[in-house]
Amino acid sequence: MIEYDGTGYHGWQRQQNAPSIQQSIEEVIEKVVGHQVELIGAGRTDAGVHALGQTANFHTSSNIVIDKMPLAFNSMLPDDIVIKNTETVPEDFHARYQAKGKRYRYIIRNAKFPSALMRNREYFCHYPLDIPLMQKAIKLFVGMHDFKGLAAAGSSAKDTVRTIYDAQIKQEGENLVIDFYGNGFLYNMVRIMVGTLVDVGRGKLPIENIEKLISEGDRKLGGITAPPQGLYLVEVLY
Amino acid sequence: MIEYDGTGYHGWQRQQNAPSIQQSIEEVIEKVVGHQVELIGAGRTDAGVHALGQTANFHTSSNIVIDKMPLAFNSMLPDDIVIKNTETVPEDFHARYQAKGKRYRYIIRNAKFPSALMRNREYFCHYPLDIPLMQKAIKLFVGMHDFKGLAAAGSSAKDTVRTIYDAQIKQEGENLVIDFYGNGFLYNMVRIMVGTLVDVGRGKLPIENIEKLISEGDRKLGGITAPPQGLYLVEVLY
Repeated sequence: MIEYDGTGYHGWQRQQNAPSIQQSIEEVIEKVVGHQVELIGAGRTDAGVHALGQTANFHTSSNIVIDKMPLAFNSMLPDDIVIKNTETVPEDFHARYQAKGKRYRYIIRNAKFPSALMRNREYFCHYPLDIPLMQKAIKLFVGMHDFKGLAAAGSSAKDTVRTIYDAQIKQEGENLVIDFYGNGFLYNMVRIMVGTLVDVGRGKLPIENIEKLISEGDRKLGGITAPPQGLYLVEVLY
Repeated sequence: MIEYDGTGYHGWQRQQNAPSIQQSIEEVIEKVVGHQVELIGAGRTDAGVHALGQTANFHTSSNIVIDKMPLAFNSMLPDDIVIKNTETVPEDFHARYQAKGKRYRYIIRNAKFPSALMRNREYFCHYPLDIPLMQKAIKLFVGMHDFKGLAAAGSSAKDTVRTIYDAQIKQEGENLVIDFYGNGFLYNMVRIMVGTLVDVGRGKLPIENIEKLISEGDRKLGGITAPPQGLYLVEVLY
């Protein structure tokens, strides 16, 4: 399980000329195990998105004791990436393909001013929000739907049907904590759901648009794509 | 009231050749009010120490509406400093001399691994800690005492008597949240109290040392000075 602060990275996935979480961890693993590795992450989080419980797998011929790996890796990793635990998996395990569910959290600060301490950890939104309406609206995403209208343009997924098992909004002081639990999420889907909920909550979009957005699959019926810094990959379930 | 993330600053106080909170805010105020100002802070927090509720005052001949100041200041401040509110005070008000009480919070992560997301917001301590013993020990600081033994060497205070009205330790998941409320605190005093409590909690220092530390006033009887990133100036009372 991996925790990271996504602020300083161009996302999970390895890129040319830009720091990525994947590359940072691969380089450290390679030093420890002594050969090249490919680290397969369960979720390819975007630039600025955080993880509390990302998972990833790699193949190795090394016989380093598995329990010693976290300490070895963490001693060489930058301190915005922490490996929480490691375990041995079957040879054919694939962190992404075999994930059965994912939990994501999104945090909105709904206040007069942003927070200096949490500026890279939440989306600051100063508009008054109708929270009971948003709590009603979020339930429209729950269930098995074709979420074609809720994927960013660059999405490569052919099958756009996903199941959201649960989704809810809790108010904690000046924060809205939005939790999604589903079998999978399309590219930018959580951020588009949140942006759409915010636009409904501030009265910019009628709640009916959510049903249309799902039934017609037209991205234009939805709201903004909420910014990355409020998003956390909380847990991957197998 | 001012919130700031102290990570990127060499503390509150203006310095030659090093960024400070005071200088950053003074420069912005000067642009808004059109003349030089001296910003007097209630607490001169160290490098890396945070504030949720710092207070500060300045004198101005400007007639800018007081309610408009936070937005004007925040629009020009770096996003790790946020002015939460402003108010007019009597001409002879002094944010530091007139403070009647201060609340400080210190956060320790007591876990196997540090947190990537909170790395600059808490003190990571992996030693097993005897929390009930620490909860007993912290009460020894409460009351009016000469805290000479709990001030850093560079302290300039002549009168080292302070009163701690309340102090407590709460366990919240993997975190210890330590709250101090007193009429004032010497230089590094909160960090020395916390470091001493940690050394007591991990069995490195007998609890009796705390009473001796206070009665004999010898810094050497105390524990480490806990690192700055776990410390928050929460509130200043007048």
